[in-house]
Amino acid sequence: MNALTAIRSDPGLEDYLARLEARLETAVASHPGVLADVVKESLKAGGKRLRPALTYLSAPPSQRSGDTCLIAGVAVELIHMATLVHDDMLDGADLRRGQPTIWVSHGRETAKAAGDYLFALAFAELGRLDDLEAIRALSGATLSLARGEALQRRQAFRADTSVEDYMLRASLKTGKLFEASCRLGGGDVRMGEFGLDLGVAFQIADDILDCSGDFDTTGKAAGVDLRDGTPTLPLILASRTDQEVARALSGEHVPDALERVVASGALEKSREVAWSSAASAREKLAGAAGVDALYALTYAVVDREG
Amino acid sequence: MNALTAIRSDPGLEDYLARLEARLETAVASHPGVLADVVKESLKAGGKRLRPALTYLSAPPSQRSGDTCLIAGVAVELIHMATLVHDDMLDGADLRRGQPTIWVSHGRETAKAAGDYLFALAFAELGRLDDLEAIRALSGATLSLARGEALQRRQAFRADTSVEDYMLRASLKTGKLFEASCRLGGGDVRMGEFGLDLGVAFQIADDILDCSGDFDTTGKAAGVDLRDGTPTLPLILASRTDQEVARALSGEHVPDALERVVASGALEKSREVAWSSAASAREKLAGAAGVDALYALTYAVVDREG
Repeated sequence: MNALTAIRSDPGLEDYLARLEARLETAVASHPGVLADVVKESLKAGGKRLRPALTYLSAPPSQRSGDTCLIAGVAVELIHMATLVHDDMLDGADLRRGQPTIWVSHGRETAKAAGDYLFALAFAELGRLDDLEAIRALSGATLSLARGEALQRRQAFRADTSVEDYMLRASLKTGKLFEASCRLGGGDVRMGEFGLDLGVAFQIADDILDCSGDFDTTGKAAGVDLRDGTPTLPLILASRTDQEVARALSGEHVPDALERVVASGALEKSREVAWSSAASAREKLAGAAGVDALYALTYAVVDREG
Repeated sequence: MNALTAIRSDPGLEDYLARLEARLETAVASHPGVLADVVKESLKAGGKRLRPALTYLSAPPSQRSGDTCLIAGVAVELIHMATLVHDDMLDGADLRRGQPTIWVSHGRETAKAAGDYLFALAFAELGRLDDLEAIRALSGATLSLARGEALQRRQAFRADTSVEDYMLRASLKTGKLFEASCRLGGGDVRMGEFGLDLGVAFQIADDILDCSGDFDTTGKAAGVDLRDGTPTLPLILASRTDQEVARALSGEHVPDALERVVASGALEKSREVAWSSAASAREKLAGAAGVDALYALTYAVVDREG
């Protein structure tokens, strides 16, 4: 199951996500033209909408059904979508959620413009709220995303990347948008810290799945990080005990590298780090009201198959 | 001479642009890391800073030396820089202002991240002002930019693109950010309309230069639009009277196509349209105080060599 399945039992969440979907469609259609059409297609392909779900569940219960929570969820999802559109173009990815990616269907220029459109739309939507702090939080998270991507590029094929540098990258690339997601609906600073920890746990779990995952459940081919030379936590840890993995991560051809990663015990060690981040996230929930679903989520993000 | 040379005599502008440059550096360095370093390099390569100059000159004279005007100028220039970084990557351009482009020096992933960083930084900087209207104006202009780029892609190699569709593209791609530039420093609605008209005139002049320009003065190779199949106003007009130009614009090889464009009289006709937009811009200045430099600029943007 994926992370969100665990929390679908929250009574208001389904209703929120349905309203979110409608609002996303309205937002995308608000500036008609080529890009509105193109982005509408990828909206239809769906998505877990995990970040908006965090916005909803992190807001004080009394504010969850309000407009702020809805618009904030739309904004964080649009930023997330923007990064996916640009990433697919750079990675040369053909499919996302079983649909041809935008750059494949419409070319690189349109994909680039569609990503920029989604970024700008996120700020346009969030600008509807009378809340400059929210704008600052979202721009900060977007800056972090870009910095995390650049760091990934800088660390590529470096098997000697430190665990600290990996953790920094995970914070920037994933944690910061989770943090913003948990704050923008009305969550307090502590809720933001929860999001940051949860995002890091989520990223580590993702990186483990890339080594061990089954295409049928994850929908992704395994071993992409190793092929791309992305030093994820399991690959860094495996490289320390197995020089063949280090060679593979540095870009050399090692046929059984992925099997070696699994055999090294690095997946279990990585999972421990993910559990530790998840536990740290849980601590932040102490004393908060209506956070049962978030509590469940701290387990589900690590213990998932896709 | 380029457009800005005409207005460098404005007493406060040089001082403003010097402060702008310092502030841009501070903004870029505010989130240290790979991207701050990379973007700093391209900042050093310089630029006309035409959009911030518009912000300054469109503001009421009493507000020009204030912080709002400076931060607004920084924000519009950052958006402009973001589009250049992404465009260079997509166009495969090797040089900008004589310096290797970011994607050439640092790879496509870093260039993509640097563009996203600049977009986000623009909103982060503008978020310093307590002005949600400004955020809305900038996100609107950024949405328009992306839409204009997508429209360009959709119109590529279509010699039958209408003048109306070209004008729409020029408004979206260039006019809207000029409009925002003229409003964000405190300019009124009328000043925004001035910017929109000026931007369209500027774009048409650019498109004429691409047909007629000399590399030594423009710093750009001529005929890029024809090669890329971009139906600019001169190319659309020339296609109407010369089928060989229409064939070239549709992607066929016609060795003397650019000479044919010049011989068709399309450059003169296009210049008339540019002059008409510039005149329309001038009308918007009637009754406004301290707009001598903007008045001069309506001539300079059309009558320039680079």
